[in-house]
Amino acid sequence: MKNKLPFAMLGTSKNDPDLFYATKFDAPDPVAAVAFADGGVLLLVGDMELGRARRTAAANCRVETAGTLELGGAPSGPAATLRETLLQEGIFAVSVGEGFPFGAAVELEKAGIEVVPAETSPFAKARETKTPEEIAAIRASQRAARAAERALGAAIRAAEPDARGRLVLGGATLTSERARSIVRETLLAHGAMDFDGTIVAGGAQAADPHEAGHGPLRVGETIVADIFPRSLSTGYWGDMTRTFHHGRIFPELRRMVEAVAEAQKVGIAAVRPGATGADVHAAVRGVFEARGFRTGTDATGRPYGFIHSTGHGVGLEIHEAPRLSPSGGPLRPGMVVTVEPGLYYPGVGGVRIEDTVLVVPSGREVL
Amino acid sequence: MKNKLPFAMLGTSKNDPDLFYATKFDAPDPVAAVAFADGGVLLLVGDMELGRARRTAAANCRVETAGTLELGGAPSGPAATLRETLLQEGIFAVSVGEGFPFGAAVELEKAGIEVVPAETSPFAKARETKTPEEIAAIRASQRAARAAERALGAAIRAAEPDARGRLVLGGATLTSERARSIVRETLLAHGAMDFDGTIVAGGAQAADPHEAGHGPLRVGETIVADIFPRSLSTGYWGDMTRTFHHGRIFPELRRMVEAVAEAQKVGIAAVRPGATGADVHAAVRGVFEARGFRTGTDATGRPYGFIHSTGHGVGLEIHEAPRLSPSGGPLRPGMVVTVEPGLYYPGVGGVRIEDTVLVVPSGREVL
Repeated sequence: MKNKLPFAMLGTSKNDPDLFYATKFDAPDPVAAVAFADGGVLLLVGDMELGRARRTAAANCRVETAGTLELGGAPSGPAATLRETLLQEGIFAVSVGEGFPFGAAVELEKAGIEVVPAETSPFAKARETKTPEEIAAIRASQRAARAAERALGAAIRAAEPDARGRLVLGGATLTSERARSIVRETLLAHGAMDFDGTIVAGGAQAADPHEAGHGPLRVGETIVADIFPRSLSTGYWGDMTRTFHHGRIFPELRRMVEAVAEAQKVGIAAVRPGATGADVHAAVRGVFEARGFRTGTDATGRPYGFIHSTGHGVGLEIHEAPRLSPSGGPLRPGMVVTVEPGLYYPGVGGVRIEDTVLVVPSGREVL
Repeated sequence: MKNKLPFAMLGTSKNDPDLFYATKFDAPDPVAAVAFADGGVLLLVGDMELGRARRTAAANCRVETAGTLELGGAPSGPAATLRETLLQEGIFAVSVGEGFPFGAAVELEKAGIEVVPAETSPFAKARETKTPEEIAAIRASQRAARAAERALGAAIRAAEPDARGRLVLGGATLTSERARSIVRETLLAHGAMDFDGTIVAGGAQAADPHEAGHGPLRVGETIVADIFPRSLSTGYWGDMTRTFHHGRIFPELRRMVEAVAEAQKVGIAAVRPGATGADVHAAVRGVFEARGFRTGTDATGRPYGFIHSTGHGVGLEIHEAPRLSPSGGPLRPGMVVTVEPGLYYPGVGGVRIEDTVLVVPSGREVL
């Protein structure tokens, strides 16, 4: 009966998406909540937040106060309130998610409340498939990402190389940093922000998928722009990557671009209800293999070529279930996943193309 | 000898400031690290991050790979790597901070590794007093906040009320939302971003210190603008609040503004080495009491009037130690704290004025 235990949460709405999903309360400072098997949720907030929480929390939430909240109240505030509330309500065992703070778990256990790691969050399954409202929210974040990609693409096209091959626009060098500003301004104009950064990496930097990019962008190189904005109003993310280049690129890079473009097309076409994330990943790898691109691992056993999985779910987290990877399970209508194959060869460069797609009964729709 | 245990961390650089402080590695996805009593740090990252981590992590870090990192790798990835690494190194007990993920703690304990809650993080004391580099970083974020306040103040002054008292600027209503855009654009131009939002709340909304503000700003009301940007390059925060108004305000609001301004001046003057956070808070409350403003609690025991503490430390977290509150301890040179008294009366409005100050041997310097 462990899955019937009340599920305790403690965090901010940003760092605990389950908490936001369950309460719809935008909590900048840590709050506690308990989800019950009957669907009801008890939300415990600081005094200062009580009015706003009662006005804005989901209808199934009972909102109570956590006592005087000091500015910057440490997690011990809500943890203590959670403990006292559970004791008052006669609850002596709760389940928690893997991100539940260890300090709060110890505090509950000291008070005789058993803390059981939940096998999965009670919201995990629901969060995997999106409601129409959630899809609309992700669509809006994708629109912001698309507008930003277009603004950046226009800037790269309008730039001219100087004698050393650096792109120059309006009299100043077009750097990764300046490109990110263009992206950010466009995102903000669309009500979204790149809270976790934006990647604009050119040349050798593009061969490292987590390199944010720095310094001048250059003619004849691939420029990977990965834009993942979060809506300022809904909290939902979007995710989109384009590989740009100004001028001709080396034949080797050209072949990589063509392979990734085909792999992405094949990957998107493989997304359908009933297919697994593993199927989609295998389809993408198949394209790389058929075109003679080495992926697998290098001599030291480290990944080589296509060094990440094909995609991931997008919602209240930028990376969430389901996964399009060798271990990815069946896709269902309402899931929203990225399809983002890439090739990375140190010394040569990198290419990645990414769209976010919705699984629909008839297949998929690119958002 | 518990304080000599290796201190294990697991998280992203955004959600675990200790991890960033210890490694200086900007980790968008969860990584694990272990800090040893001799000052050395072992940083465990995914394969995809190995190159970047070895280039950018602090000099005292040994960087190792956590095995194949899937895109969106769940915390079980680094948790498993942490477990295997500890076993390999023959470490059978670690201390962890209160935010350490419960799921990872359970995973370590199952493998026979004792997980001990640290009384305080080994970095807590060091993080309370800032190095010259940290002070420079906070100063830069304060400059961004100040520029944004000025841009917003200029917009409020330049606006004109329409027949219903709504402020209009350039033919369009000046709303809280539009005011936030002005703030964001200015922050971005200064290399900082309001990751946790910006408050621009007017009239009755200003009486709720956590209300972000929405809808038209109006003539004759106080407008509380709380701007707390984080530097995009350093990760350090700034924090500043101003209370604006356009046109004359009611005598009651005017008295509140005067009281808060005096309380803030007295609070800043009370910041000095040796004074406690409690002393500063008491000095601020003393001003409110002397001017006849009811603070304390209301009939139901909830805080009333001055409903939050006087301030908090600012650094890699927007709210961190030390506190300027009834429980605040001694201030030391190098500490950076906000001084932000406020008065909030439902139905009347709110006023808050905030600066961030550095404790120096001779007293304090407003940043």
